[in-house]
Amino acid sequence: MIHPQHPTPMPFTKYLPFQQQIQVELPDRTWPDKVMTQAPRWCAVDLRDGNQALIDPMDSDRKLKMFKLLVKMGYKEIEVGFPSASQTDFDFCRELIEGGHIPDDVTIQVLTQCRDHLIERTYDAIRGAKQAIVHFYNSTSVLQRRVVFGLSKEGIIDIALQGARLCRKLEETIPETTVYYEYSPESYTGTELEFAVEICNAVIEVIDPTPDHKMIVNLPATVEMATPNVYADSIEWMIRHLDRRDSVMVSLHPHNDRGEGVAAAELGYLAGADRIEGCLFGNGERTGNVCLVTLGMNLYSQGIDPQIDFSDMAEIRRTVEHCNQLPVHERHPWGGDLVYTAFSGSHQDAIKKGFEDMSKRSREAGTDINGIDWGVPYLPIDPHDIGRSYEAVVRVNSQSGKGGVSYLLKAEHGLDLPRRLQVEFSQVVQKRTDAEGGELSGAEIWAMFADEYLHSEDPATRWGRFFPVRSTLMSTDVGDDEIDSIITDDGREVHISGRGNGPIDAFIDAMSALGVDVRVLDYAEHALSAGGNARAAAYVECAVGERVLWGVGLHESIVKASLRAIMSALNRADRDRAKTGADHAISRPGGGP
Amino acid sequence: MIHPQHPTPMPFTKYLPFQQQIQVELPDRTWPDKVMTQAPRWCAVDLRDGNQALIDPMDSDRKLKMFKLLVKMGYKEIEVGFPSASQTDFDFCRELIEGGHIPDDVTIQVLTQCRDHLIERTYDAIRGAKQAIVHFYNSTSVLQRRVVFGLSKEGIIDIALQGARLCRKLEETIPETTVYYEYSPESYTGTELEFAVEICNAVIEVIDPTPDHKMIVNLPATVEMATPNVYADSIEWMIRHLDRRDSVMVSLHPHNDRGEGVAAAELGYLAGADRIEGCLFGNGERTGNVCLVTLGMNLYSQGIDPQIDFSDMAEIRRTVEHCNQLPVHERHPWGGDLVYTAFSGSHQDAIKKGFEDMSKRSREAGTDINGIDWGVPYLPIDPHDIGRSYEAVVRVNSQSGKGGVSYLLKAEHGLDLPRRLQVEFSQVVQKRTDAEGGELSGAEIWAMFADEYLHSEDPATRWGRFFPVRSTLMSTDVGDDEIDSIITDDGREVHISGRGNGPIDAFIDAMSALGVDVRVLDYAEHALSAGGNARAAAYVECAVGERVLWGVGLHESIVKASLRAIMSALNRADRDRAKTGADHAISRPGGGP
Repeated sequence: MIHPQHPTPMPFTKYLPFQQQIQVELPDRTWPDKVMTQAPRWCAVDLRDGNQALIDPMDSDRKLKMFKLLVKMGYKEIEVGFPSASQTDFDFCRELIEGGHIPDDVTIQVLTQCRDHLIERTYDAIRGAKQAIVHFYNSTSVLQRRVVFGLSKEGIIDIALQGARLCRKLEETIPETTVYYEYSPESYTGTELEFAVEICNAVIEVIDPTPDHKMIVNLPATVEMATPNVYADSIEWMIRHLDRRDSVMVSLHPHNDRGEGVAAAELGYLAGADRIEGCLFGNGERTGNVCLVTLGMNLYSQGIDPQIDFSDMAEIRRTVEHCNQLPVHERHPWGGDLVYTAFSGSHQDAIKKGFEDMSKRSREAGTDINGIDWGVPYLPIDPHDIGRSYEAVVRVNSQSGKGGVSYLLKAEHGLDLPRRLQVEFSQVVQKRTDAEGGELSGAEIWAMFADEYLHSEDPATRWGRFFPVRSTLMSTDVGDDEIDSIITDDGREVHISGRGNGPIDAFIDAMSALGVDVRVLDYAEHALSAGGNARAAAYVECAVGERVLWGVGLHESIVKASLRAIMSALNRADRDRAKTGADHAISRPGGGP
Repeated sequence: MIHPQHPTPMPFTKYLPFQQQIQVELPDRTWPDKVMTQAPRWCAVDLRDGNQALIDPMDSDRKLKMFKLLVKMGYKEIEVGFPSASQTDFDFCRELIEGGHIPDDVTIQVLTQCRDHLIERTYDAIRGAKQAIVHFYNSTSVLQRRVVFGLSKEGIIDIALQGARLCRKLEETIPETTVYYEYSPESYTGTELEFAVEICNAVIEVIDPTPDHKMIVNLPATVEMATPNVYADSIEWMIRHLDRRDSVMVSLHPHNDRGEGVAAAELGYLAGADRIEGCLFGNGERTGNVCLVTLGMNLYSQGIDPQIDFSDMAEIRRTVEHCNQLPVHERHPWGGDLVYTAFSGSHQDAIKKGFEDMSKRSREAGTDINGIDWGVPYLPIDPHDIGRSYEAVVRVNSQSGKGGVSYLLKAEHGLDLPRRLQVEFSQVVQKRTDAEGGELSGAEIWAMFADEYLHSEDPATRWGRFFPVRSTLMSTDVGDDEIDSIITDDGREVHISGRGNGPIDAFIDAMSALGVDVRVLDYAEHALSAGGNARAAAYVECAVGERVLWGVGLHESIVKASLRAIMSALNRADRDRAKTGADHAISRPGGGP
């Protein structure tokens, strides 16, 4: 077996390997023999490092939602912003303090550069808080010293010490607030270790922490530059050389440029660090900060209390996606849509046998499933713990191994269901699968979709209160649209009319004559194929009385598709149906390592 | 500073820590002192492990696209399927061989369980190939032995050996094909090391490899169960105990359940492995396989030839997203949308200074930028190497530090632009920014958008050939929609009418009287806020003659918004404008570790 790989045409020779930039040598390292036994102190930096890296930074409403989520999950140290760099951050800090949003056992943290006017502004921002961590930093890397600051090591140390001294002085101006300090040698991973420890020790001396009033030394992988064992070596080296270890908390702040932020955090924690800063689902600059959900759940899956509540993962994810306006990827550890789903038949069989064994063992032990050791192949944890169903073992595929609800509706019918509608429909499917067992063919899934959402033309199979007969829309450029509709209401033809600033609005106005209370929450439409004569699909999310649900309409005309979608939602609301929670799940043969 | 974190309410005690399940002890490990110096042998398993974990598995067209991409990038070992478990995989394997799609220096790999009829079918699948790797596996973990198979260790070894023997025998039936072997003790990470090495050595003896005709022993983290240093320890331990090391290639196959697949691969490679199996952008079961792009680019950024060509990252990503029907996340290392974008002002300043320093040094050295060591803060590599622009240093933000094109249009105007339209508009913005320099305020960006896409009511600033005056749409449930419009065409009022199966179709029909050739390729609409009286935004992608471009319309009525969007596209097509390629880019003050 020859080795036929060819050289890349890319100019790789311009990059220096990390070990030619920074020396990290620790042959007598001890961390690889350690194991984790308890949670670190967590610090959530979503509102600062996460927020500043968003295409769409949070407004104060989204910021408060994120803050409340973090508090509810159990985070006790929360970096809330960079108040001296942003008026929004400053105002949010004031809102938190003046609005009484900070529980007594939660400490807010604020970031500032080591510049006088920024530090002063920072103290204005935290005035009135019960306690706060002032997090000051300056850049210390070889590259930044040369290229950005043009300063010697002494000049860089001066910046840090001047900042530290001003902080201590300003502390006196807010005596009602207990101030703690955190210092970061920013771009630590590009800094010679000897210099990193020199500047940290100099700062420690100025801050003068005690075992009862510690300071935090944060060692950020501002850019992840090497394998995580090198980061861990550097942390163990630093801890050996930092002064006043009993008065210093060593904190990690890994970014994820090499995709190893989680490993860097865990190995650095084994190396003796006390505290980890990160963001939910790994938001943050470029590739993001280390993911706090992954770190917490990794501990959890080892039987270690993460001291954070992840039991409503769906709610956590929804809030994060809303606040960040960025999706959580389908394969994101512990929280992604697909991570508890086994597609291959052999995996599903093994999971099924695992569940059977769990039931048997819990029966024998006379306890529920939480009372015995977890052991189900391909499921590192019990999805129930985070509010997910056993979707992995539900089969909805076609025999060909090609099925899946979303796939089928997209590939065979061109329908691109909005995400919430996908979830709604998969519950419909799951309920039937649970009730009837067995696998579903593609045709069966389509029939189920059509029956649930589309108006059957066939009186033998149709259900629902309302059906369209004929509508006429008058839409002119001046004034309201007017609609004039004949529909059947429980089989009886009725004539209704209404007006509004668009066809949907006009139709809802018309329907109000029939005592229907409906509001449109969201809608989406798309062509089913190219061309003006394409069929359109309309999806309308409606609040009908107290229920929120979707309707779907298909028609050549976007107007008619929309009206059908409204009627679809109304008809569905009319049926009283219980809801079950479950995501889609698909099964196929195959498997493997 | 007290430690106020509370216990989680979740039932964490039911999970056993890894070290209580499997003993991995190697106090004299050597891997932490090693560094990477060359690329491993890569094996891409996108078409098997990746494909079987898709909601929407690839059809033969998408499979061939993926295969060709992998070949083009430089992968020489490609697992193409599980032909005995799936007719699609079998047929694809035949298509590759009979269609002559496999270059001479590429070896296809096929997976099979150790069951007689599956192995036989596997040999039928590879008949006629120049060479192939038959990859056979069985499950060896403590959990699976007990729960799934109910077999002793001897029984499990028998399965593997019977498979190995049948393979060797069937080899004779396809003498024209050079067959190599790979054996995986599946669920290796849950297997006692002593047993793993026992079964591997037993298989090695049956396969009887030589230094000239090696076999592959693949040690999969089928489920990632521990920190990556533990995986690396286990690999180093295995390598010390495997027989005939000179005839065996040790292969890694990490999954990513703890988010540490990349680290596991790299540390396992330091521990002495020869080969790594993974998928592009980390597709695969649950949280996915280890990402081959990240691994390759991690090497690249250390000045090590990955022996893979990543220079057209956009094309790689597009093909992968098309084949997998799953997105690559915005923050995915090396390939995500946001990973070369610095949002904070201090990062941008540092990047700018880094580029200035690069220019200066390359001038002094009399070479281009590829001739000097790379050194730009916050940019681990030169984005040009993978076909990205220096978007990190382009500023389009508002003074408030809150800007960004997408943010602004979404947050301040409620517009949720389709992705391709985002790209189109960002090119418009970039062109202006390049031409005029400086930063853009939010109001300026909005003015630019309105000027480009929306019809100004003010004759002083309006441009374009067509403007709406008044339209009347007759839409009934029976038959075509009819439209009757008065518009201005170069300032002259004209009366047109048309019919079609929807308002857009009818309007296009009407416009054809004016010699306009337009086809609708895609459209999307959404409400700007909740409620039936909300304004709607319509986005229409049109082919106008040979140009493809977007139009946008805003109106209370979805019908009128659509018609305006068509006219917007027509007006834009009417202007002859050059195109420039660039992604969005945003800048804000702030920064930090």
